[in-house]
Amino acid sequence: MTGLVLTDDVVDPERDVVLEERRSRVDGDPSSQLGEAVAASLYMNHPYGTPIIGWEHEIEKLDRHDAIAFYDRFYTPNNAILVVAGSGDEVREAAQETYGKVARRADPGRRQRPREPEPRAARRVSLSDPRVTQPSVQRSYLAPSYETGEGDRPYALDLLSQILGGGTTSRLYKALVVEKAIAANAGCWYQGDALDDGRFAVYAVPRGEASLAELEVAIDQEIARIAAEGPDAGELQRAKTRLVADTIYAQDSQATLARIYGSSLATGGTIEDVAAWPDRIRAVTAEAVRDAARETLDRRRSVTGELLFAPA
Amino acid sequence: MTGLVLTDDVVDPERDVVLEERRSRVDGDPSSQLGEAVAASLYMNHPYGTPIIGWEHEIEKLDRHDAIAFYDRFYTPNNAILVVAGSGDEVREAAQETYGKVARRADPGRRQRPREPEPRAARRVSLSDPRVTQPSVQRSYLAPSYETGEGDRPYALDLLSQILGGGTTSRLYKALVVEKAIAANAGCWYQGDALDDGRFAVYAVPRGEASLAELEVAIDQEIARIAAEGPDAGELQRAKTRLVADTIYAQDSQATLARIYGSSLATGGTIEDVAAWPDRIRAVTAEAVRDAARETLDRRRSVTGELLFAPA
Repeated sequence: MTGLVLTDDVVDPERDVVLEERRSRVDGDPSSQLGEAVAASLYMNHPYGTPIIGWEHEIEKLDRHDAIAFYDRFYTPNNAILVVAGSGDEVREAAQETYGKVARRADPGRRQRPREPEPRAARRVSLSDPRVTQPSVQRSYLAPSYETGEGDRPYALDLLSQILGGGTTSRLYKALVVEKAIAANAGCWYQGDALDDGRFAVYAVPRGEASLAELEVAIDQEIARIAAEGPDAGELQRAKTRLVADTIYAQDSQATLARIYGSSLATGGTIEDVAAWPDRIRAVTAEAVRDAARETLDRRRSVTGELLFAPA
Repeated sequence: MTGLVLTDDVVDPERDVVLEERRSRVDGDPSSQLGEAVAASLYMNHPYGTPIIGWEHEIEKLDRHDAIAFYDRFYTPNNAILVVAGSGDEVREAAQETYGKVARRADPGRRQRPREPEPRAARRVSLSDPRVTQPSVQRSYLAPSYETGEGDRPYALDLLSQILGGGTTSRLYKALVVEKAIAANAGCWYQGDALDDGRFAVYAVPRGEASLAELEVAIDQEIARIAAEGPDAGELQRAKTRLVADTIYAQDSQATLARIYGSSLATGGTIEDVAAWPDRIRAVTAEAVRDAARETLDRRRSVTGELLFAPA
């Protein structure tokens, strides 16, 4: 965090490594290209629409001065969170003795965090490529995060994601894969660990001759059903048990345990939020899950991405 | 340009006027909402995706300090172009005597101009609203501007726009409105007067029971035809004559004449560019128009916007 020396000899080859990584992971992978276009359409105003690795033509221009400017602004103890997974005063004392010596080097200042305008138009992004061996459809909805959501909404979205699309007992999997047999896979995920609005996504991969349009109709039926009726008592209870258990089991890994606290603290949460999370999940009602589906899974808040095969 | 005094008494009501203008022009008009969503999807990285008037939640936060900061940075003679429509040394002397007194107040510095990454995915934005009385479809392609285009590409795009969709003798109008009778209107426009990449847009308004999908098929046929064969000699000649004549007639208005020079100088052009424009248009070949259609009107570079009626 202090005394870093960066020379062109070090920085230039690293920039080329990043470029090469981008080329192989994004340019070489149509689904990554689609993902970038979906994110850019979903976030009309917010930098979450910019890929974390950066755009190729901008990476190409980065040099030692950019790296040092970033380092000088952000790499300072007052902008860092140290998480030590372990116990006892010993580890705390050792950490304080070691890291406590690092002097404050900068003040990164208040971040300018643009907000998304209220989304009003359903968007669709299609990418056709000869390299596509497995077509798929996904839809991302702009969704409140744990930081921006009001009341128990983010907790309800975590449960909604579990009930609608978490694993082989979820509604989407049962309807599309098991009953209708039109999908090889189907599910959803909720990304609530963002400082600003995150995403709720649903996806499906067709099976046999099924079209992406058929999959979408079936997905929309399941969304409409849970938005109208909410989950039933049994499946809500099972989702709570599974979600809480998964999180508790995950903490058996010291690294995951540390990451949960670090990630919460870095995105506006507190240690109390982490501790209270299981109880808050358990307190979510069926009505709250229904309302989360109704208000968040609104087509106008969404971008649908289609990945299609096209002959060269 | 100098000595501006801004107080809250002046600024606060003006901000409310801007907000009110945005509410009536955008919130009250579904086609404007669609236009904002199309621009935001077209420009994945560039601020041209941000509406000029601004997003409502950001306008709300603007105050006197923001206005003064903008004024202090940009309102300085070294960042201004004075265009006087008239002739004679007298007017130049008067201008120099009057405006020449204004001292340099600031250096706005080099602008950071993000570039768009190469677009790879066709995008579609749908807006359904009970207030839509006239559905329509439009498609915007990311297109080189006079500043970013190479060789005679921007001149070819101006002619392509004229041939494909300029008025009632254009290909789109003849095919969709006259021959197929599926459209009440159809045409296109090219926005080449931007510092960074601009837009080439096609649009159509359905007639009778025609669907937007039918219109798109017919538009795509016309695009495919001109991208394959180019314009024929007669229509290229007529397009050149009309485009040059329109521009010359427009200069009969002193205000338009001044605006042409001001706009060119403000977006990287020169006085020579303005003077040479008619000759450069006349020199464009049929092959150049064909290539402009082939390379610019590629679906992967585009966002299609659909405006649809939906019951409340």
